[in-house]
Amino acid sequence: MHVLLVYAHPEPRSLNGALRDFSVERLRAAGHDVQVSDLYVMQWKAVLDARDSTDRPAGARFDPSLDSRRAFEGGTQTADIAREQEKLRWADAVVLQFPLWWFTMPAILKGWVDRVYAYGFAYGVGEHSETHWGDRYGEGTLAGKRAMLVVTAGGWAPHYGPRGVNGPIDDLLFPIQHGILFYPGFEVLPPFVVYRTGRIDETGFAAVRDALGQRLDALWTTEPIPFRRQNAGAYEIPALFGIHVEAADDPERVG
Amino acid sequence: MHVLLVYAHPEPRSLNGALRDFSVERLRAAGHDVQVSDLYVMQWKAVLDARDSTDRPAGARFDPSLDSRRAFEGGTQTADIAREQEKLRWADAVVLQFPLWWFTMPAILKGWVDRVYAYGFAYGVGEHSETHWGDRYGEGTLAGKRAMLVVTAGGWAPHYGPRGVNGPIDDLLFPIQHGILFYPGFEVLPPFVVYRTGRIDETGFAAVRDALGQRLDALWTTEPIPFRRQNAGAYEIPALFGIHVEAADDPERVG
Repeated sequence: MHVLLVYAHPEPRSLNGALRDFSVERLRAAGHDVQVSDLYVMQWKAVLDARDSTDRPAGARFDPSLDSRRAFEGGTQTADIAREQEKLRWADAVVLQFPLWWFTMPAILKGWVDRVYAYGFAYGVGEHSETHWGDRYGEGTLAGKRAMLVVTAGGWAPHYGPRGVNGPIDDLLFPIQHGILFYPGFEVLPPFVVYRTGRIDETGFAAVRDALGQRLDALWTTEPIPFRRQNAGAYEIPALFGIHVEAADDPERVG
Repeated sequence: MHVLLVYAHPEPRSLNGALRDFSVERLRAAGHDVQVSDLYVMQWKAVLDARDSTDRPAGARFDPSLDSRRAFEGGTQTADIAREQEKLRWADAVVLQFPLWWFTMPAILKGWVDRVYAYGFAYGVGEHSETHWGDRYGEGTLAGKRAMLVVTAGGWAPHYGPRGVNGPIDDLLFPIQHGILFYPGFEVLPPFVVYRTGRIDETGFAAVRDALGQRLDALWTTEPIPFRRQNAGAYEIPALFGIHVEAADDPERVG
């Protein structure tokens, strides 16, 4: 199988670096093809802006969403964006690995999402009508693929527990797991989270590595998080706004 | 009073640009001093890395957290970071305004948080002992100040409602409101959210502007979200890990 590891940590000589190397070796040893997008090494451009397409008329008003659509449809996205989309199409499974900074992903990884998740690729996909509001949440370009987060956190596990002061880890990761992974179609596996990373010694690292290895071995057999699909009857779509649907050629436009 | 508006949208000729201009005028007309950090105009460096301090020994292993502490304590942070911290100290209220991209803030604003929220400034503040795990969640450097999100979303309000397919807006914003704003001490006001931004005409814009104006007028009287304070008895701190506390000189280190 094909596995894409999208990795966001600035220091290779870190716990994250060691876990990345371990993951690549473990997956290759099991016979899988692995590609790594090491965002810091790639000096990934984090900031979405008007330079993300190659054919903008000078001085035109920049609309992040409509520009993305035009560039995706017309093949005028910058090469870095198109390359990452190609890797996503190639992959059977995608692992996002990052340290939890301020309860979400580092900016460089958010910028990978902002720029690679183009209109027509990750959103604005499929029919938008009174009964079907797009192919999203379990459907879409990336349907049939699996995704998993590998996250390191400095804080203590109980602080991320059901009554923890930080909030439960599942709640904190909901915008990523549901909004960034399930939305364009991924089946989302439970996250692999390492806590208290500043206190991990050799024994602790061996335990983390073994646990991660088991998760990687089970990438194709682990039960995904049972998020509800949008178009399977659980939601009223488009809910209260049916009257506007025929004009809605621009369903997810951002302001 | 002093108000800092941190603003993240790439196009001034947008709904966001119009709301930013309106906010500045409204606040100034009420007699407040206003500073704007317009991150796109500032070409804010979004990516936290080893270049964020000016005194790193070449070749040394980069630790995001320990480097941040050394630079903050020693006065060797880059000037852009120190300037934003100064603005936060100056402010009585902070407004973060941004379009909701993939259910959270754009990368450029996340990178403002990642870099400006230094160790010793926004975390790693206060005593860390068996009974007091830092000044955070309602205490800390920014205690006594107020903060509010102004967010624009392309999707429909019901999709962000209690049973909406995207998840409730309060849940989506929890990592920001609780984890990024309440953590370093802010009192967090309910967010001002504009939905379906692609469909707003002149009449709709006037209504949004008026509603935002009322929220800005009430910046000092609106009741904050009643998040629980960490050190007020609702949480067991440090919960199960008291045995490790005396060695924990590095409470929030990231991996």
